[in-house]
Amino acid sequence: MKEIKIGLVGFGTIGTGVVKLLSANSQLIEEKLGARLVLHKIADLDITSDRGVAIAPGTLTTNVDEVLLNPEIPVVLELIGGYEPARTFVLKAIENGKHVVTANKALLAVHGEEIYAAAARKGVEVLYEAAVGGGIPVLSAIKGNMAGNHFTTVLGILNGTCNYILTKMTQEGADFGEVLKKAQELGYAEADPTFDVEGIDTAHKLSILLSLCFGTRISFKDIYTEGICAISAIDINFARDFGYKIKLLAIGKRNGDRIEARVHPTMIPVNYPLADVHGAFNAIRLTGDFVGPVMLYGRGAGMEPTASAVVGDVIDVARNLVAGIQRRCAPLGYLDGSVKTLQIKPTGEVISKYYIRFSAVDKPGVLARISGALGRHDISIESMVQSARKAGETVPIVIMTHEAKEANITAALVEIDSFDIISERSNLIRVENNLE
Amino acid sequence: MKEIKIGLVGFGTIGTGVVKLLSANSQLIEEKLGARLVLHKIADLDITSDRGVAIAPGTLTTNVDEVLLNPEIPVVLELIGGYEPARTFVLKAIENGKHVVTANKALLAVHGEEIYAAAARKGVEVLYEAAVGGGIPVLSAIKGNMAGNHFTTVLGILNGTCNYILTKMTQEGADFGEVLKKAQELGYAEADPTFDVEGIDTAHKLSILLSLCFGTRISFKDIYTEGICAISAIDINFARDFGYKIKLLAIGKRNGDRIEARVHPTMIPVNYPLADVHGAFNAIRLTGDFVGPVMLYGRGAGMEPTASAVVGDVIDVARNLVAGIQRRCAPLGYLDGSVKTLQIKPTGEVISKYYIRFSAVDKPGVLARISGALGRHDISIESMVQSARKAGETVPIVIMTHEAKEANITAALVEIDSFDIISERSNLIRVENNLE
Repeated sequence: MKEIKIGLVGFGTIGTGVVKLLSANSQLIEEKLGARLVLHKIADLDITSDRGVAIAPGTLTTNVDEVLLNPEIPVVLELIGGYEPARTFVLKAIENGKHVVTANKALLAVHGEEIYAAAARKGVEVLYEAAVGGGIPVLSAIKGNMAGNHFTTVLGILNGTCNYILTKMTQEGADFGEVLKKAQELGYAEADPTFDVEGIDTAHKLSILLSLCFGTRISFKDIYTEGICAISAIDINFARDFGYKIKLLAIGKRNGDRIEARVHPTMIPVNYPLADVHGAFNAIRLTGDFVGPVMLYGRGAGMEPTASAVVGDVIDVARNLVAGIQRRCAPLGYLDGSVKTLQIKPTGEVISKYYIRFSAVDKPGVLARISGALGRHDISIESMVQSARKAGETVPIVIMTHEAKEANITAALVEIDSFDIISERSNLIRVENNLE
Repeated sequence: MKEIKIGLVGFGTIGTGVVKLLSANSQLIEEKLGARLVLHKIADLDITSDRGVAIAPGTLTTNVDEVLLNPEIPVVLELIGGYEPARTFVLKAIENGKHVVTANKALLAVHGEEIYAAAARKGVEVLYEAAVGGGIPVLSAIKGNMAGNHFTTVLGILNGTCNYILTKMTQEGADFGEVLKKAQELGYAEADPTFDVEGIDTAHKLSILLSLCFGTRISFKDIYTEGICAISAIDINFARDFGYKIKLLAIGKRNGDRIEARVHPTMIPVNYPLADVHGAFNAIRLTGDFVGPVMLYGRGAGMEPTASAVVGDVIDVARNLVAGIQRRCAPLGYLDGSVKTLQIKPTGEVISKYYIRFSAVDKPGVLARISGALGRHDISIESMVQSARKAGETVPIVIMTHEAKEANITAALVEIDSFDIISERSNLIRVENNLE
């Protein structure tokens, strides 16, 4: 049987998962592929720790060039993560004519353009299903069977740490800091959780989804990004009263030649399918002009699901090699020459509904001043709740607006927050309830 | 730009959708494919009705051989449905070296083996994403990115007509016949709804899913199939009281070398994601050994979603043709020689929980007789409800069992239904609440 030799760079959690899968399911893969996938070389700085998986002698090396420059290896897996040296390694592999499979969303979000251009020059494939949604086969579905569609919307719950924290806050009524601490103890959050809780990881993934859905290059730096640190138990309770849940949502919409691209805590109706995505699960909801709405749901992280996506990509490349071709599909699913530049709509022009929680002194005339300011900025109120009453003290006043322009909301909040009756900065959460 | 000529057999609803998509999104497809898809010939018995789509002169023909034997056409779409003449046309297209894309689940469920064998001999592809779940890209996900997994379970809501009827019955408390009549008036159900409401369409689709998930040939005739005609409003109400919804579920499970394959009304917990699949939507939940549980959800039928799946398959074949290869993947995702025969577990050996509604005369000792008979057949009771009390009259007694063997349940019901205190045949609904 034909052998296809694979080189692996990065023998961490995902790398170990890939080794496990290739070993456990080797016969299955041969039955599907008609070729044997052989892990020929694994490069890592640490080649002595026991990962609990059997490795053939001579496979491990600390010299990454034994993978990147190895003429026997047509497929390189980059599973070290982060920007560098991942970028250097991936480019070197491509320059040496290797197909690349990676799980590295940060790398692609920031250096995707450079990597895809290098891959086009060398005529190799770059695949990265594991970079978004863990084991969920969403990128291959966009590039593959749904390729005939113009996509209009993509919504995603893409970060398991944030979704775990928000789920726990919702279930237990606990505050952010408390739940984060517990999540760190349990291993659901990193010691430094910045990339996750600030929404950066989600923005990386959204930039990849947007590129595939809209055939464009989006820098993740242009994506409006707001994390979940400012969400408090009180907001989650008010959301429930209004019939909503709060999720960290990645939102991409196409309006003509402009794109809305934003990551922020979002209130979604409790009966909306994404509202039932709990804990470390991820989900992506896409709307295509012919297929309509489609949702894909599964484990967004973890050794085994991520390994499933990585090996799926390897099988894809290997099918090409078995068939005797090098490249069948460009990294974005569009021909390299067809990738367009689309403008991101300025945040101020985005139209949405809003939940705003004001901290106001409870005295007559407060609501008139707040609603007056909103009215002057062309914002109309859908409903208002002032649940507690403590004359002379600070109480929360919650307002749900009708659809309004974000620039108007921002200007109104600057004005209102300067009122003497307002004791704290107002808290704004966007509402997404357009179900199509 | 390179042109790939497509031949279409069957210019009905789906065929019209394909024409619409290829016309509306031709530029998008060119940007992805680097080739132009041209609808070269369309064969149908009726070539005069206006389908509301523009067709180039000379495209329409009543002579199917102008498609099947046309040396300019490498890809044939079979969109007529049913067993014959679809089977003859597909085999003729394959014999003439054409790749085939079809949406015909009935054809593949019954004649798949013959068709796949012919395709193997001629080295052509047979693709059929539209045959299961309409626009949901589930088959390509199983064959594609999730290919590294051994699947253990596949559960599906696969028939929009049944799901629409059950959703309406649940929402409105109406009975089956009433809702079916309304569904027919609205066009959600066929004039002859047998294939849908008897579960046959779902069994066709399950046989296809099982073939792909388990690399085996399953005849749909071996699938235990029970439709939704016996479901009444009273069962839906009791289900709600127990925290369940009733769905027509396709269930496939692998236990070693044996497969459970069954289609029947099933109670699933209301918090189970499949319970939220309403109306004409479909969903498929798969569990792989590495990817874990994955759910795909979307429109299970309709002109546009189905056209999306068909054109996705055409793009897949066209990518091969552009790359200069004929066949890249066998129809089941497994090499033809690797497809195995797996036994279907006899229905009597299936283990499940059960809901049973007895129609019993309300008098002392009734429950003792029923529970005694269940106990003698090794069935233990989880809970029991006898809501109405009308001494001497017939009342419903509902029992939820713990897990039991189906053969024992069947034997117990034969015994109980022969009791003089039982006035009607007992109604049994299986319960699926193993969430992993």
